[in-house]
Amino acid sequence: MGLITLVTDFGLRDEYVGVMKGVILGRNPDARIVDLSHGIDPQDVRQAAYLLKAAYPYFPAGSVHTAVVDPGVGSQRAILAARYDGHVFLAPDNGLLSGIWEENSPDALVRVENKALFLEPVSHSFHGRDIFAPIAAHLSLGMDIGALGPALALDQAVHLAFPRAELQADDQLSGQVIAIDRFGNLATNISGTRIAHANPDAVVIRVGHHCITGISASYSGVREGRALALIGSRGSLEIAVNRANAARRLNVAKGAPVVVTLKQTS
Amino acid sequence: MGLITLVTDFGLRDEYVGVMKGVILGRNPDARIVDLSHGIDPQDVRQAAYLLKAAYPYFPAGSVHTAVVDPGVGSQRAILAARYDGHVFLAPDNGLLSGIWEENSPDALVRVENKALFLEPVSHSFHGRDIFAPIAAHLSLGMDIGALGPALALDQAVHLAFPRAELQADDQLSGQVIAIDRFGNLATNISGTRIAHANPDAVVIRVGHHCITGISASYSGVREGRALALIGSRGSLEIAVNRANAARRLNVAKGAPVVVTLKQTS
Amino acid sequence: MGLITLVTDFGLRDEYVGVMKGVILGRNPDARIVDLSHGIDPQDVRQAAYLLKAAYPYFPAGSVHTAVVDPGVGSQRAILAARYDGHVFLAPDNGLLSGIWEENSPDALVRVENKALFLEPVSHSFHGRDIFAPIAAHLSLGMDIGALGPALALDQAVHLAFPRAELQADDQLSGQVIAIDRFGNLATNISGTRIAHANPDAVVIRVGHHCITGISASYSGVREGRALALIGSRGSLEIAVNRANAARRLNVAKGAPVVVTLKQTS
Repeated sequence: MGLITLVTDFGLRDEYVGVMKGVILGRNPDARIVDLSHGIDPQDVRQAAYLLKAAYPYFPAGSVHTAVVDPGVGSQRAILAARYDGHVFLAPDNGLLSGIWEENSPDALVRVENKALFLEPVSHSFHGRDIFAPIAAHLSLGMDIGALGPALALDQAVHLAFPRAELQADDQLSGQVIAIDRFGNLATNISGTRIAHANPDAVVIRVGHHCITGISASYSGVREGRALALIGSRGSLEIAVNRANAARRLNVAKGAPVVVTLKQTS
Repeated sequence: MGLITLVTDFGLRDEYVGVMKGVILGRNPDARIVDLSHGIDPQDVRQAAYLLKAAYPYFPAGSVHTAVVDPGVGSQRAILAARYDGHVFLAPDNGLLSGIWEENSPDALVRVENKALFLEPVSHSFHGRDIFAPIAAHLSLGMDIGALGPALALDQAVHLAFPRAELQADDQLSGQVIAIDRFGNLATNISGTRIAHANPDAVVIRVGHHCITGISASYSGVREGRALALIGSRGSLEIAVNRANAARRLNVAKGAPVVVTLKQTS
Repeated sequence: MGLITLVTDFGLRDEYVGVMKGVILGRNPDARIVDLSHGIDPQDVRQAAYLLKAAYPYFPAGSVHTAVVDPGVGSQRAILAARYDGHVFLAPDNGLLSGIWEENSPDALVRVENKALFLEPVSHSFHGRDIFAPIAAHLSLGMDIGALGPALALDQAVHLAFPRAELQADDQLSGQVIAIDRFGNLATNISGTRIAHANPDAVVIRVGHHCITGISASYSGVREGRALALIGSRGSLEIAVNRANAARRLNVAKGAPVVVTLKQTS
């Protein structure tokens, strides 16, 4: 088959995503292409990294994940290809992928420099079409990333800092809202595993001017219109309002601090 | 092949829809997946039902229609699978499917309980990924719905009331606007068959502060900027403005009453 | 395979696009369908033409490009099918395709009249479903356009005027903004080839109240927040702001005049 996923900030109004698919299907007519998102805020590299990290494990091993959020397009920035966790990744060297492999190093990492695989001529403003699409097609046909260019040491690639939750006292975690989904649910950078050993009924979460007590099992675990906290589908703490938009109801934006107070169990 | 359609309120900014597709393709690499809509208003079960009812007959028999508009996710609400009109349906037990089979009973109806087919562990907030996607994949491979769980009598499933047009006098039908499309066209719950025997030129339609006389054959049947009524592509009465947005021009919202006065022919 | 692209103004909230795909896959289960855009402004035939012209060359020869921006649906307007530049095109006879073949004539042009291929009955409001989708499916299976209806001379088809850049003096080109993309970049109708022979550092571009000197190689060729001009991915002059939205920053809308002053090289 050859499965390719796409994450971009191109939106769906313009022809950009469709054109990438045309280039891919011209090289691998059997490629399966899945849109992860084309609604990344323009040039928000971190948002793309969070989304890709949450999504890729649900795809079959060997999938080619292609992320084009690329404010440096046409400059001297490199393009990276990597093997990591059984998957293949392709992205600009702007730190996007450093959000994927925060815990382990990639199994292989190369700079994409094999111009024979690019569209000719390569534009200065649309590498998604001229470089990423044809390379993704070749990778989906089984080409090894070693054929794309020279190996790169991990510390030669751009590293982007991602905000991390911190233990502020024995019983207090300090993190932030890192994403707001379509429902207005607030995803945080506080991993569920850091709360797992606490008594869920005694956990206190502060965000904006609001204070939530307890971790709910589901969105409908409180009355309609009430705020709640739960371990979301990405495995981290999420703040929501049952049947309403938490971002609007609680007046909280991306980046807002979140403080969790734990009472250890026994 | 195995054709799967998706209707959700997930939007396209987040990774949710892409992740469902990853799970499906991991189980059935040959599945064809068609997005019906991911733009259902959050938690608007009726909107999803109207849309699915309008769309499914245009797909090949045997298609698996998967609807995840699911405000009760993670609660005790059941998940239903059904065979109806030669198609397979999968949805939460919240009345969404009761909008599909208003006229006839399903040929088979089961509660989805076969945990061996679910992702492990099942989250409390994303059954689209953990239950609906793998089940849809198995159904698209030809699994019978009987393998998913115990049969259910129709009156054991949640029934949701959908507003129906009513005959108020011999010559007067009273309905409402049930959907507004991208063009601002107003779909109503007044079936075209109830108007078919009337003289189309003598039908009078009242909506908001406006009064339209006659049923047009097409949008361009009146001058640009003028309101008109026609039998829309869903087979029911629709109100539009030629080359403009009727919802905005007529200042009419979903739920607005629509009254039709008929003059019987001969 | 059989590759079909779709350009419409249907949006993605309603079932219209999904239903077209259902009809296509019912006739050609192996068709590959690529969405070019469903976000064309309602009834903006020119916008669809620009987009399709930019996109189609990146698809394999033989692809069937299906454009349904069709304010005259249900009226007496014809539907056209054409062979042009190795591709197949299908669109209403409203001038949309005249934007594609501004330079050369199509190799073949027919009126689509073979009702045996249409859905039965044909509605007056959704020819995308009832005519375009089944015809596209048959074309993707290899049907010749000659089987669709009688040949048409090019001057019998509707011709739509597209604004062209004009040479106003020996060294001055006058054009306009013809499209604004998701990033707020301003596409113009001034072809890059008309600037190619000038000294790029001496070119002066005037748009709105702004004046830009020089053609940049890429978006990041100027400091963040600064306006720039470059030859965009469609091959024509584009105005952008590095890491910001030029349409908003420069307060420029579609249709705004753009004047380019060239200094000829040697």
